[in-house]
Amino acid sequence: MLIGDVSAHDPVAEGTVTQGQSIRGRLGTGESLLFEPVRKTSQEQVPEKPRIRNLILLIGDGMGPQQVGLLTQYAHHGKHSPYEDRQAAIERLMNEGVAGIMRTEPHNMLVVDSAASATQIATGQYAGSEMIGANYQGDSAKTVLEYAKESGRSTGLVSDTRITHATPASFAAHQRHRSMENEIAGDMLETQPDVMLSGGLRHWVPAAAAKKESVTYEALRQLIGDAYPITTKRTDNRNLLLEARDYYQLAFDRYALARIEEMPVLGLFSDTAMLDALAEKAADNAGTRNQPTLVEMSKKAIELLDQNPAGFFLMIEGGQIDWTGHNNDAGAMLHELLRFDAVVAAVMEWAKDRDDTVIVVTADHETGSFGFSYSGSSIPKARQLAGNVFNNEKFEPNFNFARQRTLESLYGQKQSYYTILETFDALPAKEQTAESLMELVNSAMPLNIDLDEAVQVLTRSRNKMYQEGHPFLGTKTLPNIRDFNSFYVYGENLRMNLLGRLLAEEQNVVWGTGTHTSTPVTLGAWGPEAATKPFSGIHHSTDIGQRMIELMQQ
Amino acid sequence: MLIGDVSAHDPVAEGTVTQGQSIRGRLGTGESLLFEPVRKTSQEQVPEKPRIRNLILLIGDGMGPQQVGLLTQYAHHGKHSPYEDRQAAIERLMNEGVAGIMRTEPHNMLVVDSAASATQIATGQYAGSEMIGANYQGDSAKTVLEYAKESGRSTGLVSDTRITHATPASFAAHQRHRSMENEIAGDMLETQPDVMLSGGLRHWVPAAAAKKESVTYEALRQLIGDAYPITTKRTDNRNLLLEARDYYQLAFDRYALARIEEMPVLGLFSDTAMLDALAEKAADNAGTRNQPTLVEMSKKAIELLDQNPAGFFLMIEGGQIDWTGHNNDAGAMLHELLRFDAVVAAVMEWAKDRDDTVIVVTADHETGSFGFSYSGSSIPKARQLAGNVFNNEKFEPNFNFARQRTLESLYGQKQSYYTILETFDALPAKEQTAESLMELVNSAMPLNIDLDEAVQVLTRSRNKMYQEGHPFLGTKTLPNIRDFNSFYVYGENLRMNLLGRLLAEEQNVVWGTGTHTSTPVTLGAWGPEAATKPFSGIHHSTDIGQRMIELMQQ
Repeated sequence: MLIGDVSAHDPVAEGTVTQGQSIRGRLGTGESLLFEPVRKTSQEQVPEKPRIRNLILLIGDGMGPQQVGLLTQYAHHGKHSPYEDRQAAIERLMNEGVAGIMRTEPHNMLVVDSAASATQIATGQYAGSEMIGANYQGDSAKTVLEYAKESGRSTGLVSDTRITHATPASFAAHQRHRSMENEIAGDMLETQPDVMLSGGLRHWVPAAAAKKESVTYEALRQLIGDAYPITTKRTDNRNLLLEARDYYQLAFDRYALARIEEMPVLGLFSDTAMLDALAEKAADNAGTRNQPTLVEMSKKAIELLDQNPAGFFLMIEGGQIDWTGHNNDAGAMLHELLRFDAVVAAVMEWAKDRDDTVIVVTADHETGSFGFSYSGSSIPKARQLAGNVFNNEKFEPNFNFARQRTLESLYGQKQSYYTILETFDALPAKEQTAESLMELVNSAMPLNIDLDEAVQVLTRSRNKMYQEGHPFLGTKTLPNIRDFNSFYVYGENLRMNLLGRLLAEEQNVVWGTGTHTSTPVTLGAWGPEAATKPFSGIHHSTDIGQRMIELMQQ
Repeated sequence: MLIGDVSAHDPVAEGTVTQGQSIRGRLGTGESLLFEPVRKTSQEQVPEKPRIRNLILLIGDGMGPQQVGLLTQYAHHGKHSPYEDRQAAIERLMNEGVAGIMRTEPHNMLVVDSAASATQIATGQYAGSEMIGANYQGDSAKTVLEYAKESGRSTGLVSDTRITHATPASFAAHQRHRSMENEIAGDMLETQPDVMLSGGLRHWVPAAAAKKESVTYEALRQLIGDAYPITTKRTDNRNLLLEARDYYQLAFDRYALARIEEMPVLGLFSDTAMLDALAEKAADNAGTRNQPTLVEMSKKAIELLDQNPAGFFLMIEGGQIDWTGHNNDAGAMLHELLRFDAVVAAVMEWAKDRDDTVIVVTADHETGSFGFSYSGSSIPKARQLAGNVFNNEKFEPNFNFARQRTLESLYGQKQSYYTILETFDALPAKEQTAESLMELVNSAMPLNIDLDEAVQVLTRSRNKMYQEGHPFLGTKTLPNIRDFNSFYVYGENLRMNLLGRLLAEEQNVVWGTGTHTSTPVTLGAWGPEAATKPFSGIHHSTDIGQRMIELMQQ
């Protein structure tokens, strides 16, 4: 409504007021005067959009408004809130920039997966479920990273999952299904982003690497060093690392990454996913962390990409927020959110005095239907309040509205459910008992479970969704989820969802699903107003993608 | 950045450009011009905020981002979408105005109820759980409605629940607990909003009205007419209707309301809550609707309030979105959302050419932890796609991502779960069988349940939250919710939550709770940019309250 401009047709711009021309706000009366912009715009003189040098896109995977709520509640009320001003970086970004809401559904469906969602953000085109860099008709779709590259900018992808995982893959690969990570690695070598930093070595090294006595294994060990185990998921003997070495410098641990001084670089810091936030913290405390953190990777990526005078496009994913959502693991989710928000803070710090950079922070979908919720258990006792409305009557709410100290019991978690169950599964078969599970849980959590509860986590029932050969639903029994069990589809992982249920009452936490929900996500855009304004309001992910592509075409 | 005003200090307004004064964007060069608004305001020249004549606040009770997602997905993809441009009014409002995110937690807690949330929005002060118009210390807190009145504006409250229910009450009453609706009615008579339109007669008429043979009842019947049953919740013999008549014109049905031509007016259109959206539709189809719709009440309120040259404050609540969330009733929720959004559209239509009005659309919290979610049941069959990425391979997602036609099975619901169960409970005791419940459900729903499932709805188990004398938890058994049962606290209503579980798989719908969640809500603000800009970004409900109070103090 109030788009202001100086127009040749605007008599005020000429320094005179032409009689008979209606200039509301000057010649109008009283009230209407107050609501007009200083100068009204005419069509011909809309200011050109600025050429934006750099676009940094941060995607919190699975970070719906529900998760943003957890992060901001911790920032404001958490005892160990890392924010001096009690404001999460994502809040600061939305308040200094613009806020928006992003709808995410893919073609024909209501709920999106990370591949289709990232594809829509990357290409501005509707995708089919689980597709990578393809539109819903199955055609390869050009991504914002590819447009940026074409414009002469440098490009980068950073993720704390695997570089071939759905979100980063959708910016630099074109495959019919997200599971095709070997093929995605091949695509990425063709697309050649200048900076790729993540995990996922297993999709880059030949099948022969599976044998520790092989020459291939030995050669890889010499190349990679001892930073982490070498595994492979490839079924061919293509060695993408060797192919990459023709173009990329390679890095396999944080020390090597620190030494890199220019692009291009491919950093693979784990055979599969990188450490989760709690495991990273533990490794830091033990002095055993070889992987760079998401902040370290992001800063290095920017340092390198910024060397190109034409600017850059960089996508950074906080990918494990989603996994904690799938596992219904609230404590670990809080730590993933804090880890991601630290990247937002670092990126804002780098960009703070710049007027050539746009930062977009958003998510691909929500995971878990998470919430704090009010319950009928542990209802606070009535207590006296001095206020005049109370007249000596007590303050006595009917329910337990979730005490803020609940946040500390989430923060105090030491291991993710994933690590707990991974440790359990690594025990010799006969030691995999309810007792040992109980002990593992109780040593990792500020809350305790008892033996009966540990038994519940290990209780199974018939898998009514059984499908022979299905990658997730191919077992005849599953851990016993009772309500909404069609939405719990990830096999043995459902033990974590059961664990989440046991702690829910004390955490005042609820979960609705083991998959994603349709909730539109939040979006914040920071940078020059002419460039960020189109991101405010409520838009579909394909619109957001188109706007980013426009910025990178200029 | 585009805050516009014409000020006496503005040289351009004088028709000249004063040398030496920096008018960046006109006199600036190159890039900086591109990133600046047309005219930059120097510190001394910050334009005064406009005096806003009217503030219309629309609160969708329980309308979290999850529910906004349902509404907008229906608007875009629903077969019966009422929107020609496939955009919900709330979207249009956010896109023409500004979007924001609102955090809602009350003092000391993480989850808010409608009373504390509306109190925070109304007063700009932190409230304790379930308080009405009081801050967390228990002191009476002045509301935006009271500030507006003080400034000479007229004021109004409209709700489809009861006028004494938590949300409207918090704008015009000061009580220690939301359950004190009799006292709230008394407060409202003292505060004297100029327009009050809703349900809830039962808190305005004396205890004696309970007896149909009483003189009181007969007198009330003559006053009220036959529009609806007369019931009372008062325990004293105060007749607030008679007291109100000294000041207010009274209306008890839509016909009387239509005849009202000036303020003040008190319209009470039901003894308790007004009709829900589906019941209203049914009454309309049967030609038996005596109550005005939320749109009719809102338009009448604006027509009357607008007669005051000083302007007005009006709060309109879509209150039953929340109730469908509590009951985990997705189909009815969709209809409540459409009903509320029609009000947003009507208000925007009224305001479209005005530059003296701010419209704020938000919510008080989310209810139900609702979402469409992807499942492992009814996974679509693989199918051929022509696209080049597919190479004759089939498109074969691993899961059921919720077909968009699912929206129609929600839209096709004919009665809310509440009406179904109300009808069931009104049957003679021995007819309250699983068979009759099954029939009631199947005649109201596009999806069917079988007898076993009807039995599940009527199955009870021990209430582990039992508290003698508790208004909701005072029964020793409850309908048998299995997972997260501490979050299901509303007695016999839990049968509806069980019904919701039965239909979840086919609807691709999940619910996490029978109460509220902590999810921050969406906010849209429309009007002159200088006035709406402070609402963009992410803020706490107390900040939003303060901003509204500022507008109404000017």
